[in-house]
Amino acid sequence: MPLVVVGSVALDSVETPHERRENVVGGSAVYFGLAARFFTPVRLVGVVGEDWPPEHTQLLQDHGIDTSGLMTIPGAKTFRWRGRYLPNMNDRETLEVQLNVMSQFDPVLPEAFRRCKFLFLANGSTKMQMRVLDQCVGPDLVVADTMDHWIRNEPEELRELMQRIDGLVLNDAEAKLLAQDENLVRAGKKILEFGPTFVVIKKGEHGAMFFSRHEMYVLPAYPTSAVVDPTGAGDSFAGGMMGYLAEKNDFSPRTLKEAMAYGVVVASFTVEDFSIDRLLKIRREDIQLRLDEYRKMLMF
Amino acid sequence: MPLVVVGSVALDSVETPHERRENVVGGSAVYFGLAARFFTPVRLVGVVGEDWPPEHTQLLQDHGIDTSGLMTIPGAKTFRWRGRYLPNMNDRETLEVQLNVMSQFDPVLPEAFRRCKFLFLANGSTKMQMRVLDQCVGPDLVVADTMDHWIRNEPEELRELMQRIDGLVLNDAEAKLLAQDENLVRAGKKILEFGPTFVVIKKGEHGAMFFSRHEMYVLPAYPTSAVVDPTGAGDSFAGGMMGYLAEKNDFSPRTLKEAMAYGVVVASFTVEDFSIDRLLKIRREDIQLRLDEYRKMLMF
Repeated sequence: MPLVVVGSVALDSVETPHERRENVVGGSAVYFGLAARFFTPVRLVGVVGEDWPPEHTQLLQDHGIDTSGLMTIPGAKTFRWRGRYLPNMNDRETLEVQLNVMSQFDPVLPEAFRRCKFLFLANGSTKMQMRVLDQCVGPDLVVADTMDHWIRNEPEELRELMQRIDGLVLNDAEAKLLAQDENLVRAGKKILEFGPTFVVIKKGEHGAMFFSRHEMYVLPAYPTSAVVDPTGAGDSFAGGMMGYLAEKNDFSPRTLKEAMAYGVVVASFTVEDFSIDRLLKIRREDIQLRLDEYRKMLMF
Repeated sequence: MPLVVVGSVALDSVETPHERRENVVGGSAVYFGLAARFFTPVRLVGVVGEDWPPEHTQLLQDHGIDTSGLMTIPGAKTFRWRGRYLPNMNDRETLEVQLNVMSQFDPVLPEAFRRCKFLFLANGSTKMQMRVLDQCVGPDLVVADTMDHWIRNEPEELRELMQRIDGLVLNDAEAKLLAQDENLVRAGKKILEFGPTFVVIKKGEHGAMFFSRHEMYVLPAYPTSAVVDPTGAGDSFAGGMMGYLAEKNDFSPRTLKEAMAYGVVVASFTVEDFSIDRLLKIRREDIQLRLDEYRKMLMF
């Protein structure tokens, strides 16, 4: 099943204790799309400025992503993020955010995207996420991401959104903030009460937790020694997860758990190089091999 | 197989965001012993002062722990630790340490303890750990714990100890310090090169990692919403692990992995109440039930 993702397309500048990269390809929708395309056709909705190199769009297309929903705003600049990772390579500080075109991002879904069965609302304004949802005709599965900024500044809208989506994906700090609870198990359960059928809490290098009415579990991250750049790990986790669900055209508890595992594995590749470089190099077989190892790792 | 543990016996004072307890039973050997006794007879070696209430010793005996190796130093005081947990209930600050009897702890193993097949050297001076090892006749499996203080202050001795033990158990911050590497996967592999056949890195609420020449894996913590007091989680993890190995009288890779899982599960009980209270209440069947759930949680 085709999968529609709406989110940011960015030029990132990243500093790690070892290296730095300026203006590399990034953004939640990009990482998500490049992770999901191993499993299913991806339709990307986003916005860039005139400074966005067209070869980046070409690159996405070459990797099976339908970019007909990627708008270019003349005379405007692409969303830019600059961050620095601490020596533990898990925590980071945002040094600069230039919203640019993202500040008025008001996506219009191409006609062909509206009957999407699988929709992922990547990080962005809750109001914008809701306007996208309004444009979709009878989606089967809608999952959204959010972050501290929207939890703090659009709480009413987020409450409403949570009533309208099937799944919410957010990181540990965001889950604690949203639930007003420092214990992640309680936080996940509280967020369920806000409306979603399932909640996924991403814990960075410590994996991810899943919550539904009848189930709760934790899966660890796939351990890798080659952490080069963690940017996009969370978005590619979501991409791997949603991509697998769309491929299976199923979201039973069993498939959801497998999807979580695929998300973990795809994210473990993402961090092994800067920007999207690793995601461009691997093949579905690499994912499958690592998934089999991961499955074995958790069996006793 | 009987299991000998040498370590601290303490009176702890614990503050959490919700409650506090003064002078409750604690210490690495106590938590370890009470976790291991579900699986195998435990022989405890430690030291207390005159202020140690004899009913605490009775309590340990009532729970199947052989305390004939617990010395009382007349006129001296028991080791005391005071700590405060941060709201996340994972990180803590040590507010006060009174070494008291631990400062000259020089254990003499009772004759009956010397032919121990399974030995755990809980946290303590590396020199002391080595003197204990000297007293053991042909143990089959020796595992040690250590901490930042000894890594910094007895590095030579620790190097020597690591050549003489089978397994080293330590927490994430300690592993990074010992290996001088911020990546835990690399850190674990480096520590293996120092000598132990296997290394276990405890990650608190994020579970534990296992390293041997041929294998590396991560197991998440069992998720619990009822975290009341995390004190002793690491020691009871080690107790559950070693207890299971001693019960099976085996330390094949497969049994080691099962043992890790038992350690995770026992630790998840420990944190559900203050001090040793939860460990005193549960039965082996409770551990087994939770282990089965945990196994299922990790299957996909």
